[in-house]
Amino acid sequence: MDTIDSSPLSDTLLSEFAALLPAGRALTEASDIAPFVHEERDKFKGRTRLVLRPSTVEEVSAILRLASQTRTPVVPQGGNTGLVGGQVPRSDAEIVLSLSRMDRIREIDPLGRTMTVDAGVVLKRAQEAADDAGFLFPLSLGSEGSCQIGGNLASNAGGTAVLAYGNTRDLCLGVEAVLPSGDIFHGLRRLKKDNRGYDLRHLLIGSEGTLGIITGAVLKLFPKPAGREVAYVGLASPQQALNLLARAESLAGGRLTAFELMPRIGLEFTVRHTQGARDPMAEPHAWYVLIEISSPQSGEDARAVLESILEVAFESGEIEDAAIAQSLAEAASFWRMREEMSWAQKPEGGSIKHDVSVPVALVPEFLDRANALVLEAIPGARIVSFGHLGDGNIHYNISQPVGADKEVFLARWTEINTLVHGVVAELGGSFSAEHGIGQLKREELARTKDAVELGLMRGIKGLFDPFGIMNPGKLL
Amino acid sequence: MDTIDSSPLSDTLLSEFAALLPAGRALTEASDIAPFVHEERDKFKGRTRLVLRPSTVEEVSAILRLASQTRTPVVPQGGNTGLVGGQVPRSDAEIVLSLSRMDRIREIDPLGRTMTVDAGVVLKRAQEAADDAGFLFPLSLGSEGSCQIGGNLASNAGGTAVLAYGNTRDLCLGVEAVLPSGDIFHGLRRLKKDNRGYDLRHLLIGSEGTLGIITGAVLKLFPKPAGREVAYVGLASPQQALNLLARAESLAGGRLTAFELMPRIGLEFTVRHTQGARDPMAEPHAWYVLIEISSPQSGEDARAVLESILEVAFESGEIEDAAIAQSLAEAASFWRMREEMSWAQKPEGGSIKHDVSVPVALVPEFLDRANALVLEAIPGARIVSFGHLGDGNIHYNISQPVGADKEVFLARWTEINTLVHGVVAELGGSFSAEHGIGQLKREELARTKDAVELGLMRGIKGLFDPFGIMNPGKLL
Repeated sequence: MDTIDSSPLSDTLLSEFAALLPAGRALTEASDIAPFVHEERDKFKGRTRLVLRPSTVEEVSAILRLASQTRTPVVPQGGNTGLVGGQVPRSDAEIVLSLSRMDRIREIDPLGRTMTVDAGVVLKRAQEAADDAGFLFPLSLGSEGSCQIGGNLASNAGGTAVLAYGNTRDLCLGVEAVLPSGDIFHGLRRLKKDNRGYDLRHLLIGSEGTLGIITGAVLKLFPKPAGREVAYVGLASPQQALNLLARAESLAGGRLTAFELMPRIGLEFTVRHTQGARDPMAEPHAWYVLIEISSPQSGEDARAVLESILEVAFESGEIEDAAIAQSLAEAASFWRMREEMSWAQKPEGGSIKHDVSVPVALVPEFLDRANALVLEAIPGARIVSFGHLGDGNIHYNISQPVGADKEVFLARWTEINTLVHGVVAELGGSFSAEHGIGQLKREELARTKDAVELGLMRGIKGLFDPFGIMNPGKLL
Repeated sequence: MDTIDSSPLSDTLLSEFAALLPAGRALTEASDIAPFVHEERDKFKGRTRLVLRPSTVEEVSAILRLASQTRTPVVPQGGNTGLVGGQVPRSDAEIVLSLSRMDRIREIDPLGRTMTVDAGVVLKRAQEAADDAGFLFPLSLGSEGSCQIGGNLASNAGGTAVLAYGNTRDLCLGVEAVLPSGDIFHGLRRLKKDNRGYDLRHLLIGSEGTLGIITGAVLKLFPKPAGREVAYVGLASPQQALNLLARAESLAGGRLTAFELMPRIGLEFTVRHTQGARDPMAEPHAWYVLIEISSPQSGEDARAVLESILEVAFESGEIEDAAIAQSLAEAASFWRMREEMSWAQKPEGGSIKHDVSVPVALVPEFLDRANALVLEAIPGARIVSFGHLGDGNIHYNISQPVGADKEVFLARWTEINTLVHGVVAELGGSFSAEHGIGQLKREELARTKDAVELGLMRGIKGLFDPFGIMNPGKLL
């Protein structure tokens, strides 16, 4: 798979690619290219000479056919919001294929409860289109204003609604994709049941653009909840949060739609650095949980369930305090405390990040063991471990000690990752719960993945992409 | 992939395989083998000289290692309830590997809501183990008393709970499997989020034992509904049933857990041939729907929702009559009318069967067009089209005309399949919604599947199983 050409794209080839598209759809000026090679966290520096913006699946096919013939590496890009560098071109040998111009909502089928969209549709727009048609498309992420459905699928994005609705792959009935050869995979099925052979859809989903380019998808729609209520809860420990989770699941059944854990220090950072943010509680608590209940029946039902959970939890001493949002604005402000937590770490200096999952019941043990190792290695490190407790998925982020040198601290990224991921592995967990592998975790994947599994993955890569032109240097 | 040995298994090799297991776990007597080569519908006649019954994943691994070395074809078998011949050995060259002795419930994790089981656990037992632990494992099939979890996964079984909970693949977090080489795929993960590369789990699920043998699985558990109510509804047409479905989904939200369509003739057959079965309604109706509502809250809530759906539907003229089950016994009798419908066709003579799906909204069009073609081809044919309307999945079964010659009628199986599946294809549907491909639909798959997709499937088969020892002659 190392047959690709790693010399910079020639002017001739550049023109050949550009000629496959209508005028204006091939970007070659540095200023036009800039937004496609820089990502928001500035962790990955990109380079390319050419960004192609096709608007049809046939154009994507023509580009990949030429790329295969000429062994030209292609980096597919959606909203450029990925956190592991999967969407970033690494050199002038690589071209970027942006899906942004493929942005049609192709069809909404209210009876079948499906929505068929181009890969370049921005998630927020997909949510709104579903809403306008009287449905819920539940996928919900911090970057939903700019990330695209194709990228969500390529990375099998998670987010805050996984607890009730599943990961992106669970929200997709069918995909259309272009293979590296230029062949089109016509898998845009609207079927709830289809057992005709191997499930290639699930192979393409989560493959981070290394097997082909997803150009369209059939998404599942859900009934809109009739009512939704949010509470902010103060409690003593992750173990108590886990007890509360079990209680909430047993009382709310399928109506529990979010359960997010946050530490005191994360709340302090957020209040400190986010305009308008305030602590929802009068007294400080060591830990916080945001609970959301959605009722198919009514707001009263959601409220009653939420109140009954909190009442029983309070009586049994599991929680210290709780505030139920009294308005949509207050509910939004509770959610904001959770959503801004990652960004609020930035003004506090360097942050070494992890995106891990373990079996839900083992989250407290994971935190205890990881904290001990990290604080032994870096006394004074400020651990901001928050996230989707209901999914066993913790964003275990470590802010530098107060006054430490940022570069010196960040230089220990791999060392600290190794410590934390060691605990994760011992607990049967994953060092990439929802962000994927990309460039960031590629070596770690190669080092840690079971040899049998890695062998199959490499075989599949070779089968789909014999010349290795699809997003090379990512994932595998 | 035609490198396998098709001569009957030699006595020497037979002894070598038998020596891999404790005494008594290798069956060679015809009377012992009989239950493994005959399937209930008698559509596929099996043959083998050897049935192996390993009880550990290591034993399965040793068998497949030897099978690979000696190019011996292996047919994995669970509860032997498959309807497409996937589990049936075709000749004395093939050995059967039965998973029945791998029947441990390995672990139940109440906080993570998972259950880890051996592949040979019977579905009914898995349901009961979940129930004992205070949870619901929702997979529900006619054959649940004998089918096994491994077979459910290998065939991605559907059933009556798909509407609310998904197909078998949606109920599984991780699998353990043995590859044809004997290598063990250690994918028994209990994680709700894990984005470390290609999803091999979903490739193994639904591959009908052609890529490897699933030996264990992590299954998702769900909260038990607090209340469940069932109604039997009489109405005029599939279009009215579809209108009722839309209404039920909008009023019940996630609480709609079954929506099954049945024609009058199916009810007549069932009443005629099933002991104790009776028509739940005083007057005859052209079509019937069984609706089930499950509430996380209470039986009263389920009842109230069900009543409100029926009330509005009745007022708007969508339905003609409705009976809400007044007891658990009555609910069971309603369900029985649906479950016995397939068997009730048997005393009526030959039945040409289909297991198709189309987008939900197109079910009435499918029925109109298919009926016209079938009745033109075979005047007097009695069409018993019933099934999971909420999934767009219809068991389109055709009983012979009264007094017709059964053999002459059944000889037209392929001709009629071709007519019906032609309509299915034009509507973007599937000719195998939930039963799989096996032997029965293998040629049709090869003939109709998109060349790009078929090429990828064959490539994957070659990658996993270079000597073609895994369940040859099935699926591909």
